[in-house]
Amino acid sequence: MSNNKAILIVADSERDSNMYYATGFSAPDTFAFIQRSSERFIITSDLELDRAKSQSKADTVLSFSKYERIAKKRNGKATGLIDIVAVALKEMKIIKLQVPANFSIEYADFLRKDGFKLEVKKDPFFDSREVKNDEEKGDIVATLRNTEKALEKAIDCVRKSIVKDGFLFSSRNRQITSESIRNIINVELMKKGCTAKHTIVSCGEQSCEPHNVGHGPLRANESIIFDVFPKDEKTGYYADISRTIVKGKASRRLKKMYKAVASAQELVFKSAGNGISGDTIHRKVMKHLTSLGFKTGKAKGKMQGFFHGTGHGVGLDVHEPPRISKVKCTLQTGNIVTVEPGLYYPGIGGVRLEDMILITDDGCRNLTKSPKVLEV
Amino acid sequence: MSNNKAILIVADSERDSNMYYATGFSAPDTFAFIQRSSERFIITSDLELDRAKSQSKADTVLSFSKYERIAKKRNGKATGLIDIVAVALKEMKIIKLQVPANFSIEYADFLRKDGFKLEVKKDPFFDSREVKNDEEKGDIVATLRNTEKALEKAIDCVRKSIVKDGFLFSSRNRQITSESIRNIINVELMKKGCTAKHTIVSCGEQSCEPHNVGHGPLRANESIIFDVFPKDEKTGYYADISRTIVKGKASRRLKKMYKAVASAQELVFKSAGNGISGDTIHRKVMKHLTSLGFKTGKAKGKMQGFFHGTGHGVGLDVHEPPRISKVKCTLQTGNIVTVEPGLYYPGIGGVRLEDMILITDDGCRNLTKSPKVLEV
Repeated sequence: MSNNKAILIVADSERDSNMYYATGFSAPDTFAFIQRSSERFIITSDLELDRAKSQSKADTVLSFSKYERIAKKRNGKATGLIDIVAVALKEMKIIKLQVPANFSIEYADFLRKDGFKLEVKKDPFFDSREVKNDEEKGDIVATLRNTEKALEKAIDCVRKSIVKDGFLFSSRNRQITSESIRNIINVELMKKGCTAKHTIVSCGEQSCEPHNVGHGPLRANESIIFDVFPKDEKTGYYADISRTIVKGKASRRLKKMYKAVASAQELVFKSAGNGISGDTIHRKVMKHLTSLGFKTGKAKGKMQGFFHGTGHGVGLDVHEPPRISKVKCTLQTGNIVTVEPGLYYPGIGGVRLEDMILITDDGCRNLTKSPKVLEV
Repeated sequence: MSNNKAILIVADSERDSNMYYATGFSAPDTFAFIQRSSERFIITSDLELDRAKSQSKADTVLSFSKYERIAKKRNGKATGLIDIVAVALKEMKIIKLQVPANFSIEYADFLRKDGFKLEVKKDPFFDSREVKNDEEKGDIVATLRNTEKALEKAIDCVRKSIVKDGFLFSSRNRQITSESIRNIINVELMKKGCTAKHTIVSCGEQSCEPHNVGHGPLRANESIIFDVFPKDEKTGYYADISRTIVKGKASRRLKKMYKAVASAQELVFKSAGNGISGDTIHRKVMKHLTSLGFKTGKAKGKMQGFFHGTGHGVGLDVHEPPRISKVKCTLQTGNIVTVEPGLYYPGIGGVRLEDMILITDDGCRNLTKSPKVLEV
């Protein structure tokens, strides 16, 4: 970039993963990041000044108050964050700004009116986020291992449970529910510094809605879907696993669905690799499931079959590019993506299996070690 | 609003609190919310369709796929979310859109080019979010009570600890650290379904940076700041508490700071109420602390004194309007705001006390019950 061009992000880095990626600094309140060539600046409040200096990747950390007086003089009234950022940009003689797709319209309108030229770069804003380096791989696998342990503990509870009248009870005669199992998973993960939100433990009909987190008593002989996707709060990196189990006996149809979903995963493991088209893989998976007799579409006003993507990138966001879906994409070495075909039929139940794979030059490597067993 | 006008939000409701407030529906992926007069629409993927129908507040839930074919025909290529939303808006004959300040520039540019008129409404986007109704008050107080219990458990650990060579140890001779105490708080909260992130347990010099989460061994006779602000994942509502303690003996100067901060809180409790200016209260607090001999400013390149706001609204965001700070604002009945003066002096330590108050017609009510004791 020439000298009057810069990257600009104005966001908080706790929620905005591009901001966290750019700065390596986790802060709850909005601040500004400016990158001119390879020089990185942060402009933040006095409150965060010293912490940003010691914790962020920025070369220079500037304070709002440095520019506040000039900004006040300029517009003759109380100043907001974006007035201050504009003053700083003018001082740096920056005119052209590259901003992310989620850049605030309020800030954009202000800057454009103030003479800046904005170029919006669609996701991925930082191309390098799609290709994980060794540190990132290590961070993701560390979160994955903690997730596997928490999941195993939860599945173990179901395995050891006692069935009475079709419902599950602990050895202490407490009824086992979606909520109680979710709590076990989330608390185990929190002990390791990982926050899990919306952990799915859904049984029977509930498992037919892929994002239904599940509630109420778990039942024997019905599918139970687990989908756990926590973030390690120290590194910021996510992991994502799904497993489906049945306490007791699975129906013939559920077993067939499970086998189909597992074979769809195998198909992806064999197909994925550097330079391979993600949308082609997704279509292959759809075709494979259809060929096994599992139709997708609406029935009685509800979606059934396989009606979500095959996979998505995982990193500082739980869902990030690249996606293995109907949208065009080419996989490349260093991508870490999920492989999560699923089948959902009201009246029978839901099945989803989700592993994480690393794309390599000559194929892919499954990073997930959790066993796959339907009946427990 | 006339019939060609509507509110539009396009975001995910897990991170965007306006979207969650508007829809009552928690979803991890971006979807669209349209409100024309009092009629509320959601447009979402097939994946979330059934869940949105059963869980959201929307009158009508529409699916992307309903508009996808038309959108494809219109622009002759693969369609994104915003193409689909534009088709739906045109079908509804909506032209004028009111969008929140954080509306995506990518979407805004697309819609404007497509002939829509966008009006950006600054925060608070929904004015009613500032005034908590009885259900919201109940939700916030419920989160607060869980926070108080977790905090008490953590303080109890410090209270019962054994001091050796100035460091704290448990009865099992394990060294007590910021990390171990933070873990106790976060795990206790997770047991209650509340996720706490960036919980602060900072000791000595670290406590002089207000947002330093703290790390390493805790020490006797130095200030330890706790700042805990979890979200109840079921209701979505936050709480926020800070306390400062010393295991052993506090220095004379630290005691004086503690007394000053506590008296600054009392000053706010006496001043706050319906119709009262928040910025006037903030200036009063600054003046009060200065009058007690506590100066604010830079010393040896570091900020010291009182260099953050006096308080902020708490609700679906941990920091939301109204703010008791230098920015103009008028408090009103039903606001729930923090009162958190602090003093920070490198070489002495940090002190912050934070309660949550409800603004009432004739003053305010302190919602926080945690005791305030410096030495434990």
